[in-house]
Amino acid sequence: MTVSAQDVRAAAERIAGRVRRTPVIEVRPGLTFKLEHLQHTGSFKPRGAFNRLLTAKEHGELTGQGVVAASGGNAGLAAAYAARELGVPARIFVPETAPAPKVAKLRTLEAEVIQIGSEYAEAYQAAVQAQEQSGALLLHAYDQPEVVAGQGTIGLELLEQAGMFDTVLVAVGGGGLIAGIATAMGDNAQVIGVEPELAPTLHRALAAGEPVDGPVGGVAADSLGARRIGDLAFAAAREYGVRSLLVGEDAIVAARKELWIDHHLAVEHGAAVAYAALKSGVYRPVGGERVVVVVCGSNTDPATLT
Amino acid sequence: MTVSAQDVRAAAERIAGRVRRTPVIEVRPGLTFKLEHLQHTGSFKPRGAFNRLLTAKEHGELTGQGVVAASGGNAGLAAAYAARELGVPARIFVPETAPAPKVAKLRTLEAEVIQIGSEYAEAYQAAVQAQEQSGALLLHAYDQPEVVAGQGTIGLELLEQAGMFDTVLVAVGGGGLIAGIATAMGDNAQVIGVEPELAPTLHRALAAGEPVDGPVGGVAADSLGARRIGDLAFAAAREYGVRSLLVGEDAIVAARKELWIDHHLAVEHGAAVAYAALKSGVYRPVGGERVVVVVCGSNTDPATLT
Ligand SMILES: Cc1ncc(COP(=O)(O)O)c(C=O)c1O
Ligand SMILES: Cc1ncc(COP(=O)(O)O)c(C=O)c1O
Repeated sequence: MTVSAQDVRAAAERIAGRVRRTPVIEVRPGLTFKLEHLQHTGSFKPRGAFNRLLTAKEHGELTGQGVVAASGGNAGLAAAYAARELGVPARIFVPETAPAPKVAKLRTLEAEVIQIGSEYAEAYQAAVQAQEQSGALLLHAYDQPEVVAGQGTIGLELLEQAGMFDTVLVAVGGGGLIAGIATAMGDNAQVIGVEPELAPTLHRALAAGEPVDGPVGGVAADSLGARRIGDLAFAAAREYGVRSLLVGEDAIVAARKELWIDHHLAVEHGAAVAYAALKSGVYRPVGGERVVVVVCGSNTDPATLT
Repeated sequence: MTVSAQDVRAAAERIAGRVRRTPVIEVRPGLTFKLEHLQHTGSFKPRGAFNRLLTAKEHGELTGQGVVAASGGNAGLAAAYAARELGVPARIFVPETAPAPKVAKLRTLEAEVIQIGSEYAEAYQAAVQAQEQSGALLLHAYDQPEVVAGQGTIGLELLEQAGMFDTVLVAVGGGGLIAGIATAMGDNAQVIGVEPELAPTLHRALAAGEPVDGPVGGVAADSLGARRIGDLAFAAAREYGVRSLLVGEDAIVAARKELWIDHHLAVEHGAAVAYAALKSGVYRPVGGERVVVVVCGSNTDPATLT
């Protein structure tokens, strides 16, 4: 089971008009940001969500039972948003520990929110069970082909918007985002994953030769807190030679502050991880190399920016 | 003394590479934001500053004495930034009441900051005096032709970036921004000024038939707090039939919150004024009308966004 560049192109057609074509900005010669945190709901996740839901709809698999998903974060917001736009109900399972503002935001999007268990894995099991009992559509946060293909549409936009470039830096959680972008990019640019030292899912999998569970934590855990890389993402990383670089907590915090103070972008920690690789020198472009950084989420308390 | 469309085109060539070509985003069909708050220093002001300084340089008028300006806000930041980039000193006169963080930011940009008097007018008098004594170049915050022409380059970018549109909504302080954009636009689109009820410089001038002094206040006074509209802006408003709409304090605050919560843009109050006209219904586009809102500044305490 892999995702092809053709799947990404089909996703782009399918979700056109549903998602924003987010802008790019050249912040200095050779460095471009893709402002995907300006997407509906404040992250790239609606791309994959719409592609999954609309594909299911084409196949008659999106019924009045709607959608179930497990996530207290951006994937849940996207699921709720896409379901509402398509006129079907959404049930979102979140851990009991999910922050109250996120739960409130999900309810604003008209989702039914079910708080269950103390961590994501339990919420996920409950979502799977609900899907089996109801026949609703299960929307995974990263490890479904339609989700990967949807996230990949960012890559197609970059090829149109960003002129010539050599390298794309992308944050990795479960890996749906990077798998999609690597697939869209093909030979056109190298795609490099960046992960917090405290949540190194791709790094660990590349070292072990297969996806493996591991502990996750740190400032970006609310968005990059998957316990293991998805199978689709691991396959894509192998196929396209995607590497993983690790950044420390201080580098993430400093990059997020700089994105605000110097670039006027208010982003969450997970969305500062890719830029942190550049800022901290963990990734050093060679002379003349043109780099794109994907800025991927803005669901954050702005009071913590300064 | 007026500014022509040709002056704006010349400004665009002159400042190319010095300022960012800020992106636009279509937030829904028929509504586009120009993300000018992502400009260097967090506002559009470097456009006019660079055009003034580079024009002076061409004429041998930018000496080792550098630049003087009066402003505790975005115009001061832009003056300091442009001077630093061009390798000349900047002396910025600010009222003693200027907030400490702004003064600190000016110093980060290597400007000499002189705190004098209790309001802007006194700081301005001191700047004029310093200019006369030293032969430095005086950079006005809005009422110089090169400044107006520089701000107008936003309009030229819009004509290239935003497809077809009918209307541009622009916040008005001293009027440099709207004068430049109206000049750039010519017959291509109507330009409408939006002002806080508590700081209605253009409104007052249009009613009186000439620029007149008046009280200013309200949440946006730190950026839209000029006491009277500039002569150049008044002339441009007459020439291009620019109207002024007024928005209340609550509408400005609500628009700024919505720009953050729904659009993930962290902006200052002055930069929410144009959007407030749309949100509050003070401006109602007719069916099919395509509107551009200029989002013009991000120098704000992010803790006040929620
Ligand atoms: C802001 C943000 N960035 C990056 C990621 C990582 O995406 P993925 O799980 O597809 O690797 C997420 C996932 O939720 C996210 O919310
Ligand atoms: C963010 C912002 N918006 C709008 C304005 C108004 O510009 P002008 O004085 O040219 O009308 C200013 C002026 O400082 C500003 O800083």
